[in-house]
Amino acid sequence: MALSAYEQLEKRFAKLSALSGAQAMLHWDSAAMMPDGGNAARAEQLATLGVMSHELITDAAVGDWIAEAENATADLNEWQKANLKEMRTSWRHATAVDADLVEAFSRATSDSEMTWREARANKDFQALVPKLEEVVNLTRQVATIKAGIFDCSPYDALLDEYEPGCTSAQIDELFTDLEAFLPDLLNDILDHQKSQPAIIEPTGPFQEDAQKQLGLEMMTALGFDFNHGRLDTSHHPFTGGVPDDVRLTTRYEEGDFTKSLMGTLHETGHALYEQGLPEAWRTQPVGLARGMALHESQSLLVEMQLSRSSEFLAYINPKFTGTFGDLGEAGSFANIERLYRRVEQGFIRVDADEVTYPLHIILRYRLEKDLLSGALTVTDLPEAWNAGMQDLLGLTPPDDALGCLQDIHWPSGAIGYFPTYTLGALAAAQLFEAAKAQIADFPARIKDGDFAELISWLRTNVHALGSLKTTDEILEDATGAPLGTAAFASHLKARYLPD
Amino acid sequence: MALSAYEQLEKRFAKLSALSGAQAMLHWDSAAMMPDGGNAARAEQLATLGVMSHELITDAAVGDWIAEAENATADLNEWQKANLKEMRTSWRHATAVDADLVEAFSRATSDSEMTWREARANKDFQALVPKLEEVVNLTRQVATIKAGIFDCSPYDALLDEYEPGCTSAQIDELFTDLEAFLPDLLNDILDHQKSQPAIIEPTGPFQEDAQKQLGLEMMTALGFDFNHGRLDTSHHPFTGGVPDDVRLTTRYEEGDFTKSLMGTLHETGHALYEQGLPEAWRTQPVGLARGMALHESQSLLVEMQLSRSSEFLAYINPKFTGTFGDLGEAGSFANIERLYRRVEQGFIRVDADEVTYPLHIILRYRLEKDLLSGALTVTDLPEAWNAGMQDLLGLTPPDDALGCLQDIHWPSGAIGYFPTYTLGALAAAQLFEAAKAQIADFPARIKDGDFAELISWLRTNVHALGSLKTTDEILEDATGAPLGTAAFASHLKARYLPD
Repeated sequence: MALSAYEQLEKRFAKLSALSGAQAMLHWDSAAMMPDGGNAARAEQLATLGVMSHELITDAAVGDWIAEAENATADLNEWQKANLKEMRTSWRHATAVDADLVEAFSRATSDSEMTWREARANKDFQALVPKLEEVVNLTRQVATIKAGIFDCSPYDALLDEYEPGCTSAQIDELFTDLEAFLPDLLNDILDHQKSQPAIIEPTGPFQEDAQKQLGLEMMTALGFDFNHGRLDTSHHPFTGGVPDDVRLTTRYEEGDFTKSLMGTLHETGHALYEQGLPEAWRTQPVGLARGMALHESQSLLVEMQLSRSSEFLAYINPKFTGTFGDLGEAGSFANIERLYRRVEQGFIRVDADEVTYPLHIILRYRLEKDLLSGALTVTDLPEAWNAGMQDLLGLTPPDDALGCLQDIHWPSGAIGYFPTYTLGALAAAQLFEAAKAQIADFPARIKDGDFAELISWLRTNVHALGSLKTTDEILEDATGAPLGTAAFASHLKARYLPD
Repeated sequence: MALSAYEQLEKRFAKLSALSGAQAMLHWDSAAMMPDGGNAARAEQLATLGVMSHELITDAAVGDWIAEAENATADLNEWQKANLKEMRTSWRHATAVDADLVEAFSRATSDSEMTWREARANKDFQALVPKLEEVVNLTRQVATIKAGIFDCSPYDALLDEYEPGCTSAQIDELFTDLEAFLPDLLNDILDHQKSQPAIIEPTGPFQEDAQKQLGLEMMTALGFDFNHGRLDTSHHPFTGGVPDDVRLTTRYEEGDFTKSLMGTLHETGHALYEQGLPEAWRTQPVGLARGMALHESQSLLVEMQLSRSSEFLAYINPKFTGTFGDLGEAGSFANIERLYRRVEQGFIRVDADEVTYPLHIILRYRLEKDLLSGALTVTDLPEAWNAGMQDLLGLTPPDDALGCLQDIHWPSGAIGYFPTYTLGALAAAQLFEAAKAQIADFPARIKDGDFAELISWLRTNVHALGSLKTTDEILEDATGAPLGTAAFASHLKARYLPD
């Protein structure tokens, strides 16, 4: 019997899934295993797989199958219908832009990424200007074309790739809420912290092996399935691989175990999401994680909401001594708590605490919208960056390496990505608040290192849903409300201000 | 300007090379890194890449381009002509058999491999019979079809995949030579060894880390380029990856460092060949290793010819003490030499020394030709195996796990592969003899751990030639003669019999 259009699509997308799985493993290998000399051959492998994937999805038959399947949804169940919707989203992004523009964009971003590495090392923004201008121009072309097809603003067309369905109107509202309370709250927190005892840094060296053992122990406690994944080391920690074989990486500093540990816990949050995606839909678009906001919510829920809670710190603190020996005064519970909750204005986003982090994001969101619309030129970016930092965080970067050169996102063409970090932080707070309310004896469980109920709650309410529903639907079902700032605000107040 | 047919082919084969590189990395990962739970997803990735490769090479255009290019070779240089020849070989293997038979063969061999693992564990040959019969039948179908197209015998058609151009007539001649002297020589060697002091086994435990350090030191000394490769661990040692990124694996036994070390040295020989392949032809068939015989010659040249020479053992012996501490009497040079040159009739091929190894291969060669022709049925295999073992090695296996169930080759459909092990041993002896004669102060260099001249000789005479010439041409240019048994015979006599 001939396959239906929908069945043809499932077959094609399974093939695409196998190819993207192969690419994911090769990406992981590049970062975690590959010697430098393997770079050229690997680039060819990845480029070839990329081109073949693009050919498979832009093949004229796919558009026909989608149209045909959309006219015959009566026989499809809820998952299949959602799958078809995700197929269309994926297909319309792939077919929107012609091959020449895709190639020009890909060449411009590789080029600009390479220049960015040097420019950042040399604190030389001028060197990046022509490359970044090219990337912004091409991104604008892509965004404009997609905006015409998707019937939305150019910025929203870009956003849709990272967080499907999300709009800048929604972000504007959330970020306006944040701006309304965050600067004052930050000042209150800083004032309060001044009244506290000085933080004592644990002094190493802390052997990498011991740090790894502790990381593995925490991953195990949180339910990471080592039959379907591994922990390795890379320069930039990330979670890669495929849901059946999640490759998590971290990095270790011999002088400071506290950051590496939180890095591992952060990635474990991402990894649990991947491992918990619906098994029956592993090869299909509906089986993928919902979007970058929800993905980041899972990492931040583990790293920020759970792991810096008093209960978790009470659970883990004895393990520090067990692993690294007596830390002296630095190892007291009060000091560890202060250490893991230090709030500070700083120049660098990736080092920021959860209170100041959204301010970094608001700055980038404003600037990237203006870059895209043309209201801000690349040449004027450093000045606008520094003004924004002064405005939001009261700091002026001494050089562009500590300013607008710090992130790879724009040079690599990823305009529209930054907001998802803060959307993720908001979602994490909201989900954690709901989980706490719905799970009996929550604080006692955490103190005992019993995370099974929490993980199971996340599995049911987030992970196992894949892309069946929208982010807001998932949040509404799990927490009773769409994405908002209330849980985040009350979380920050409860954690960082005196009772 | 339109591409010429030859240029189209280079482009297509570069794409195939990128795909096969991706497959090679994923194979390495499966063996060295992947958790068991990743197996199903990995199988899909590899199958998808395999199907896409097959489509790319069997595409009707490729045959047309080859025919067209072969009619316009005037503009091609020597390398391009050889490349075109390799393209045809590769294409004719790929197109000879239709997709249905390829798929049936692939399914039958996976199935039979799986059954073989259990059958071997249970010493139950009967369980394997139907699966192996199916594999032999399908192999016969493939061989018969290819024989018709290539105008050769079915067995030679299979051989051609592993050692292009090699014929059973050539192997018969070489193996007849071997059989003429090897059994008597073996008896003489065994008699001689009886007159020697008993071998003392070094007693461990030898820490895995220390063994690995010694392996890395030897790889470095031999010129393995760690900017283009790595050393890892897997259950079955192998050399994989791509020439720009060679992934070598080994395994360690805590109780015995001597085997692991020789395993690493063996794989290093393979790896040096891969790393030394012609850089300008990395993405083309002519840039690949010449065949399995020459590949095995490179591993055996390092493991057997070089590393068990008195000079090499004198060089490495002090490192044993340096690495593992005092080994007592077991660490004396005389004992280490006896240990690394122990000759013994045994049941298992992979454990065999270089004297008895060819007898294992002769047995397999005889049997697999008869299986293919139908002169021997699968059911009668154990009896024929045991009779052959008695005849060639004077032993009768107590069970089939120590007999005809020991190798995966036949269950996995690799009939025609076994002879290349012994062709490689012959080539190794012949190449090493020539290198020794052509390099000034050879013994002194080896004693000093100076392998640069030897490796450079191999680079020039073997590695950098890729598939430009045939195996016999390469050997003739390098050693003055095509493949023969003389160097191997005199090597064995010199090494194992008293002066």
